Amino acid sequence: MPQTPLTVADIGEFGLIDRLRRRFEQGGEGVLRGIGDDTAALQVRPGYLLLATTDALVEGVHFQRATIPARLLGRRALAVNVSDIAAMGGIPRWALVALGLPAETPLSFIDDLVEGLAEQADLHRIRIVGGNLTRSPERLVLDLTLLGEVEMDRAIYRTGARPGDRILVTGTIGDSAAGLAILLGQVPRTVPGAEELIARHQLPSPRVEAGRAIALSGLATAMIDVSDGLAGDLGHLVVDNGLGGVVDLAHMPLSPALQAAAAASGRDPLPWALYGGEDYELLLTAPTHRVDELTRAVEATGVSLTAIGEVTAEPGLWLRHPDGQRVPLTPAAWQHFRSTDQTVVRAPTPPGSAREERQGEEGWP
Amino acid sequence: MPQTPLTVADIGEFGLIDRLRRRFEQGGEGVLRGIGDDTAALQVRPGYLLLATTDALVEGVHFQRATIPARLLGRRALAVNVSDIAAMGGIPRWALVALGLPAETPLSFIDDLVEGLAEQADLHRIRIVGGNLTRSPERLVLDLTLLGEVEMDRAIYRTGARPGDRILVTGTIGDSAAGLAILLGQVPRTVPGAEELIARHQLPSPRVEAGRAIALSGLATAMIDVSDGLAGDLGHLVVDNGLGGVVDLAHMPLSPALQAAAAASGRDPLPWALYGGEDYELLLTAPTHRVDELTRAVEATGVSLTAIGEVTAEPGLWLRHPDGQRVPLTPAAWQHFRSTDQTVVRAPTPPGSAREERQGEEGWP
Repeated sequence: MPQTPLTVADIGEFGLIDRLRRRFEQGGEGVLRGIGDDTAALQVRPGYLLLATTDALVEGVHFQRATIPARLLGRRALAVNVSDIAAMGGIPRWALVALGLPAETPLSFIDDLVEGLAEQADLHRIRIVGGNLTRSPERLVLDLTLLGEVEMDRAIYRTGARPGDRILVTGTIGDSAAGLAILLGQVPRTVPGAEELIARHQLPSPRVEAGRAIALSGLATAMIDVSDGLAGDLGHLVVDNGLGGVVDLAHMPLSPALQAAAAASGRDPLPWALYGGEDYELLLTAPTHRVDELTRAVEATGVSLTAIGEVTAEPGLWLRHPDGQRVPLTPAAWQHFRSTDQTVVRAPTPPGSAREERQGEEGWP
Repeated sequence: MPQTPLTVADIGEFGLIDRLRRRFEQGGEGVLRGIGDDTAALQVRPGYLLLATTDALVEGVHFQRATIPARLLGRRALAVNVSDIAAMGGIPRWALVALGLPAETPLSFIDDLVEGLAEQADLHRIRIVGGNLTRSPERLVLDLTLLGEVEMDRAIYRTGARPGDRILVTGTIGDSAAGLAILLGQVPRTVPGAEELIARHQLPSPRVEAGRAIALSGLATAMIDVSDGLAGDLGHLVVDNGLGGVVDLAHMPLSPALQAAAAASGRDPLPWALYGGEDYELLLTAPTHRVDELTRAVEATGVSLTAIGEVTAEPGLWLRHPDGQRVPLTPAAWQHFRSTDQTVVRAPTPPGSAREERQGEEGWP
């Protein structure tokens, strides 16, 4: 009789829980009760705020099994939540994992997914303290809730930017969008830098250490992570607070891999950088006279920090070309539920951008 | 032109977030940042443990739009998480709401769902501090994460029962399962007590005040809420800890509505009570000499407490008949992923029980 691969239906809910419990180390600092109880009991430190964030990944909407291996999916699902904690300057600590699984999901897929979650958790010393398992007939659904901590007087929020502040971003942007374009076959996989860009898309590196350095320095006025695209997330920092921003085209931090891939494929890398999203870098504002000190603090963590523009009292977002000319930069945040463009101003989608590809993938029919 | 009802696709993700933000009161004690930021910033009190629990409801698996109105679905989704916090003796405080929505979901359905969530939150003074919105092509998915607090020295866990302890349960059990049987048409809706039983199924009353009274009394040794069925959850309290339990048939707290419905339909109410689940009552253990004091503490909150049996050193679960005869009571917890009964001992499903109906509804094909 041929051996058929085991599925989640073969081992049942409790079998799955046992598997998770085995891989996720139990207990640890601050964990009084974890997996196996209905509720985790956690000890938050005096003087710290609790941070709580949740993000869901739905198969066919946020990922496809064809374009990301299960282990990387697990790592990525946790990493994007870690990025939210990092954007407040916090320390990620405990996670709850809710999995919705089709009955025919191979057990090997679950094992790889759990391995990825555990690897990413280990990397940040996060404890998986609970969760939920349920059947989801058509699609795999991963809903992660991540809890973290930040010193009460060090948390950085989306609000707080002031006119005249410099706008800064860690690392490089646009890589993830370019990596997705390659995965979707819209840019040849043979371009130089392709594997690096794909890795940036599949496995973001949330900027926890940089975020901690920024928070502890007390020098930043506002911060967010770049998940919707630089333009969209900058809008949250300034436009949502009645301010504006000017971004210098010449100062955009583009990686050598992105520049090489763009050149080889005859693409403009800018749409990827401005509208691509999923970079999971930190975007922040700080007074001009604190930028040098802040940059040193961030670079001490091994991550670059680049000043890309400034906050203005005049509302709106602008892109400044090297000749000084300004063009509007529309805050085009990623909208999951929008079927038409009729009532909301959004940035025109640059042809061939990753954003356009995601719209094809995620937008309503 | 006929007016078509608005759907979530018509207002987009940000329109939905605005709608949620309008209905869920912002700020409040302990909330430094809530809806609208990627991460909630919360202040946990010194001397308290943080409690964290998550539960997902998937359309067609855990509920059907035909059998529960959207408002009650919202209330129920939050209530079942509140019950998990209550089972640790905790105070529910903050919730994160992750919604997966088909594009064609009517906006009125969402409004009712949100209203239900807000009503239940108001009832327990819970703040909705964040969440996630995403598209879920086929099915509505509600994943709630609830955070709570409990005094460090008052938390009650699943572990801690000792041989000789009495087994106690709040309120009445089996009502929810009988209500579901009526909703599924397996018991006529005309039986006496039907509406009360349906209400118990659609809108559980998590025992927060009773749980607090039990925790503050310091008299209970272990506690859990009855979600999988009395037999299954008792198994978690005793069998999982190497102990056993005997339950007295004559002492099962059955409501007048359940007894009337059972009598009128010629059913035995016992399977509903033992295996039905979703009662969201509290099941606990306490030393015999503390039972009177504990009962008074619980009854002061307006909820009854009934001693139904005792913990034994001998492993296994038993049902004791009035003539003293014991029959095995299998710990038949609800297993979402189990397709067959081949490898795990489970209680025989009594014909016509709510458990059987749920198996038809939720089991693997």
